Amino acid sequence: MNSNFDDFVKQNVELLDQHIDELFDSDSTLNTDLKMMMKYSIDAGGKRVRPLVLLAILKAFGKTPNYDILTVAAALEAVHTYSLIHDDLPAMDNDDLRRGRPTSHKKFGEAEAILAGDALLTVAFQWISSTNLKDRIKSELVLSLASDAGASGMIAGQLLDIQGNQRHYSLAELKHLHHLKTGKMLLFPAEAALIMKPSKLQVAELVKDFMANFGLAFQIHDDIIDVTESTAILGKTAGKDVDLNKNTYVNLLGLSGAKEELNQVLQKCEQDLTSLGELQPEMDLMILEGFLTYLK
Amino acid sequence: MNSNFDDFVKQNVELLDQHIDELFDSDSTLNTDLKMMMKYSIDAGGKRVRPLVLLAILKAFGKTPNYDILTVAAALEAVHTYSLIHDDLPAMDNDDLRRGRPTSHKKFGEAEAILAGDALLTVAFQWISSTNLKDRIKSELVLSLASDAGASGMIAGQLLDIQGNQRHYSLAELKHLHHLKTGKMLLFPAEAALIMKPSKLQVAELVKDFMANFGLAFQIHDDIIDVTESTAILGKTAGKDVDLNKNTYVNLLGLSGAKEELNQVLQKCEQDLTSLGELQPEMDLMILEGFLTYLK
Repeated sequence: MNSNFDDFVKQNVELLDQHIDELFDSDSTLNTDLKMMMKYSIDAGGKRVRPLVLLAILKAFGKTPNYDILTVAAALEAVHTYSLIHDDLPAMDNDDLRRGRPTSHKKFGEAEAILAGDALLTVAFQWISSTNLKDRIKSELVLSLASDAGASGMIAGQLLDIQGNQRHYSLAELKHLHHLKTGKMLLFPAEAALIMKPSKLQVAELVKDFMANFGLAFQIHDDIIDVTESTAILGKTAGKDVDLNKNTYVNLLGLSGAKEELNQVLQKCEQDLTSLGELQPEMDLMILEGFLTYLK
Repeated sequence: MNSNFDDFVKQNVELLDQHIDELFDSDSTLNTDLKMMMKYSIDAGGKRVRPLVLLAILKAFGKTPNYDILTVAAALEAVHTYSLIHDDLPAMDNDDLRRGRPTSHKKFGEAEAILAGDALLTVAFQWISSTNLKDRIKSELVLSLASDAGASGMIAGQLLDIQGNQRHYSLAELKHLHHLKTGKMLLFPAEAALIMKPSKLQVAELVKDFMANFGLAFQIHDDIIDVTESTAILGKTAGKDVDLNKNTYVNLLGLSGAKEELNQVLQKCEQDLTSLGELQPEMDLMILEGFLTYLK
């Protein structure tokens, strides 16, 4: 497919990885064991989708990554990584593998994993507030991240997910769960980009709508590959969701139904990009379009 | 003892409790189960020492509590409460009782307790950034809170505490542990007050020194009452630290040695207050003095 997109991903993953290392290594006050554990999980070969989408939206608005933007992107990845560490705990999903490596509690112990997760959540706010962005922008970013990640957002989604082990959700309930659990942290890149690069209302709404649809497609895709791909390719235990009879799009709609639903949502993503292009022709949407190929 | 202090505590605990309830109840986006679990733990009859100290320092500077100040105080209590919930987990201290009531994981389950803790940590940053304080002040408060609570502060102390189950610490190591685990979140009230009410350098240093000593005294006192008071009075399982042969001042110095150490540190607190009074005679230090009686 489009080599522009591949180049974008390659270059920016490299930039991000370097920047995350720098953020950790430049802070001599960090407890060294915690730093090692935090880095183990944040470095563990994730696709960096959330921070990459943030950089891609900013690029579409003509902004290239600088120290401050990369720090916000790193903060987003830190929050995402903390959520994975805590989700993998024995009391939650009890996963031994993540991205092909032992999960944090398997590697370091359960207490250590809880603390490493807590520390990654906390450092996200520290990083954002330590940038050289305007104070108003920093405040808005902290508010937006805390709202999306907290008891109105991602954590609420995680609780609904756990409570769903007790009963089967309807399609509407499942969509609500994922709107919170996966969707909010994929909406944040849009919100953060618009805080750093304010835009006219219609454009802002379309960017957020694109990311809301992208988040939904992302989750349906995740449910599909859980049953179609092997553990080796996933880097986590395959087929786990079916075994547990969990609430997933595949369990609810069947594999072909889930694929159809995914296609419909991806079409909405395309429509959002088309509308954006018509409204603001100077926007370069090629990279955002590239993200959709992840999910096809 | 001094009825001024008792009145201060009574009035401000009431103000704080009302304000915390309002912060939760005015947010209709919160997941209702999470809200209930967060409130269960933050409402559980704590002494509110940390937010009260913040209000007391601000009062010494002539500032009375308003919406924004109470919100910062509530955020501090939210972070403290999250740390208790996670510390009590089976993988950490495995405590069944806290403030005389079942701990969060005993009441709601382990996954739920992890999430309620995560949500309290997150909401602290949300609350601070949603105040009407100046953006610069909000940024500084977020940075200070995240630094004190994170992998350079409280969480580092908690890790050292857990690692200490494997071996005996020296007195210097134990002090370092508590400087991080208990001390940092008792230093934050001083830092937060000075961010909201900037003061000349010497005064700022004395206020921070007072709180550093107060934090140390607080922890020694905690270790002492663990062996001298009953479970009923403590509201948590008494004698737990001795049973586990944990690193405590009492285990290291003996009961009378710990009491002597406490007295010495309390004298340093008194000296700080005396110096503050000489330097800035208009400061009303009676309430801060009152807090020392907690520890006698």
